[in-house]
Amino acid sequence: MIELNFSNMMEEVLGEKGISERQIEALRGKIGDAHTQIKARTWPELAFIDLLYQDTSDIKKIAKYVRDNSDDFLILGIGGSALGPRAILEAISPFHNLKHKPRVFIYDNVDPRTLKNILLLVDLKKTTVNVITKSGSTAETIASFMILWDEMAKIFGSKASERFIATTDPDKGNLRRIANEKGIRALSIPPGVGGRYSVLSPVGLLLAEVIGIDADEILRGARDIHERCSEPEIWKNPAYVFGTLLYLMEREEKRNINVIVPYADGFKSFSEWFCQLWAESLGKLGFGLTPYPSLGTTDQHSQLQLWMEGPEDKVAIFMRVDDYGGDIVIPNAFEEVEGMNYLIGHALSSLIKAEEESTELALARVGRPNMTINIPKIDAYHMGQLFHFFGVATAFTGFLYGINPFNQPGVEEGKNLTYGMMGRKGYEAEREKVERAREKKSCWKI
Amino acid sequence: MIELNFSNMMEEVLGEKGISERQIEALRGKIGDAHTQIKARTWPELAFIDLLYQDTSDIKKIAKYVRDNSDDFLILGIGGSALGPRAILEAISPFHNLKHKPRVFIYDNVDPRTLKNILLLVDLKKTTVNVITKSGSTAETIASFMILWDEMAKIFGSKASERFIATTDPDKGNLRRIANEKGIRALSIPPGVGGRYSVLSPVGLLLAEVIGIDADEILRGARDIHERCSEPEIWKNPAYVFGTLLYLMEREEKRNINVIVPYADGFKSFSEWFCQLWAESLGKLGFGLTPYPSLGTTDQHSQLQLWMEGPEDKVAIFMRVDDYGGDIVIPNAFEEVEGMNYLIGHALSSLIKAEEESTELALARVGRPNMTINIPKIDAYHMGQLFHFFGVATAFTGFLYGINPFNQPGVEEGKNLTYGMMGRKGYEAEREKVERAREKKSCWKI
Repeated sequence: MIELNFSNMMEEVLGEKGISERQIEALRGKIGDAHTQIKARTWPELAFIDLLYQDTSDIKKIAKYVRDNSDDFLILGIGGSALGPRAILEAISPFHNLKHKPRVFIYDNVDPRTLKNILLLVDLKKTTVNVITKSGSTAETIASFMILWDEMAKIFGSKASERFIATTDPDKGNLRRIANEKGIRALSIPPGVGGRYSVLSPVGLLLAEVIGIDADEILRGARDIHERCSEPEIWKNPAYVFGTLLYLMEREEKRNINVIVPYADGFKSFSEWFCQLWAESLGKLGFGLTPYPSLGTTDQHSQLQLWMEGPEDKVAIFMRVDDYGGDIVIPNAFEEVEGMNYLIGHALSSLIKAEEESTELALARVGRPNMTINIPKIDAYHMGQLFHFFGVATAFTGFLYGINPFNQPGVEEGKNLTYGMMGRKGYEAEREKVERAREKKSCWKI
Repeated sequence: MIELNFSNMMEEVLGEKGISERQIEALRGKIGDAHTQIKARTWPELAFIDLLYQDTSDIKKIAKYVRDNSDDFLILGIGGSALGPRAILEAISPFHNLKHKPRVFIYDNVDPRTLKNILLLVDLKKTTVNVITKSGSTAETIASFMILWDEMAKIFGSKASERFIATTDPDKGNLRRIANEKGIRALSIPPGVGGRYSVLSPVGLLLAEVIGIDADEILRGARDIHERCSEPEIWKNPAYVFGTLLYLMEREEKRNINVIVPYADGFKSFSEWFCQLWAESLGKLGFGLTPYPSLGTTDQHSQLQLWMEGPEDKVAIFMRVDDYGGDIVIPNAFEEVEGMNYLIGHALSSLIKAEEESTELALARVGRPNMTINIPKIDAYHMGQLFHFFGVATAFTGFLYGINPFNQPGVEEGKNLTYGMMGRKGYEAEREKVERAREKKSCWKI
């Protein structure tokens, strides 16, 4: 079971820069209210919790079809539709494409160079394309879908549809409509579940099964942590403690940046998954905590200086791993060299753990708050726990702030301006806005 | 030539949330002083500017040796010793390991799982290892060097040294000493040049040459931008304008987060390179700007909500690309589907550029400052420009703050605690500190 150690957030360790038990007790009203909203499923978007009990047989069937028929598996999706699958892929199957088939490519942009490279690298005759968009109309995803559809049609003609899997709303949207008309295999994202809360839906689970990870094991992990994250009593609920502490650190100590620092290369994409969830859910109405994706030990040589001696605007969230599933002992080389020989005989895992613990402590000693999530092992079960833990913690924290943690109204303006520039009907006014802005924008150039 | 458009930082566009010409003029004293420090090379660390005029023949010779003798090229380094090479690799040769030899692996951590994977994947008999550490004693790098040395010695015996290239101080440190003793080919990082300013030294240039990029072309780009970045007159110097605006936005508008958003997948690692440079150089004495690594269009679906509607604590720095070196036109697929067909006939590059421009504008329209660096093409010449532009801008900004942009005193404490835990002689007191802290740390767990 993952575990949260928050000693380095508390006044017992940090002194006056820490949070006191009393401060948390004083929030009991708000905490209770947030709990009630979750328990009563006040928001339809809390449907992400129901994912834990889903039947995965369709996912498994389609995954088998993909494995049996593909050397390459190409995901088209952006935001939550890409970050979740990539987090699973890189955590559980690092260096996947150099070791396993089907290889996995995740195209989550409209960078032409990237897509050209992917098209050069994959053998389309043996590629299955998973198009993931809840709404069915995400511009970036649809653009690449149109390109891939055209390419596949050149090869397979009317049988092109067999090379696609659509992951989308069960009823609505363009992708669902096309899937129905063309007979494309499809999986459903339940209506209430938003993109950034969708990793435990077919969005993430199909990829998992395709690369040989048991989706049920991920869900079992999520269910086990859910028990603990359903506790009404704050002191027994790690997700509530996590959210409450970061809320207090921001509201009362003005610490508006939350750095997430896993000590495992495979969690780099997981950090980015968390950052979308935290940023997009909480950043609205002038509120918001800025999540920062980091990586230990690497960023000790990049960011730590700023965390130690920069402005007191951060909380660090360490992710510590017990079992790396293998180890290497530093051998007896250069024994004669002082300043190197102290490393001899230590396992790499003990060095990385020592660095993690040292960094925690170094921060705490200068009054910089941090907490640690301890992860027994990087596997399907614990990935499920991590995903769900952060899902509940994020929704809960949104409720503490009194905001809607499920919408993203702030991205509409940019989308509409893009529609205008692309000549979409009905967006002529937006096109004019862009043209007017261009004149002004040319004033300061160097 | 790269170009900086800073209209969306100025009051002409942003109104009262923008910077006025007058505010910049008022800083002329500080700006002049910073310029004098750079021009007079007041700090020995400004030696990074001399890199632009270096002779690359040794680098080219060693790179040829690597190419002629290797299927795999493994870099051991951390911080600037890894971020610079990786930024070059991913910008100029995306998907490199699926397309080219020698493949490149950059091990910049002590994660045992990653190293085990690398050792499984490479053929050590045909691998050259580039060990990069300026000081010659970076724990993470030395640990992996010891492991690789031992592995190579098992295969090559006393000829193991031929499989290594050391990139380090010309005279000092353990790595230089070992290179001299064992006859390891070596390249020098000039004494004044710190890790995060070292990308245009052999640290980055050897990797460039190994993958077939002309180091001289990178340096030519850097020299060309250096001319512009040497201008004493602020209004003609893009590096000074860049630094001055971000300084003013922080000092006078409390915007302490600088998000860097390239619109090209290949620049993702470049973002991280910039983040080290900016964070470690400026984060000290309670000052500091937190650089945030982002990526367009991808993060429009992850972070944009927070930038648009979250706290007004950010400035976005867009990186826009003119020529992606290839393109794909969105074909006529699903013509009948309203909400998709507006995309038909547009090139992917025009979509990604429209999204970039729309995002800039959407932010500016709600008073959120941003600027744009325009990059004609992603190639060696312009990479050189980008690296050097940010190097000068960072040193300059440090001088505006009145701090030393070249040291990193805040990372020592963590290092010393790690030495203590690893049993290094002379660090017994640190070990005790850790043990005492452990008792306290066990109080809050869930």
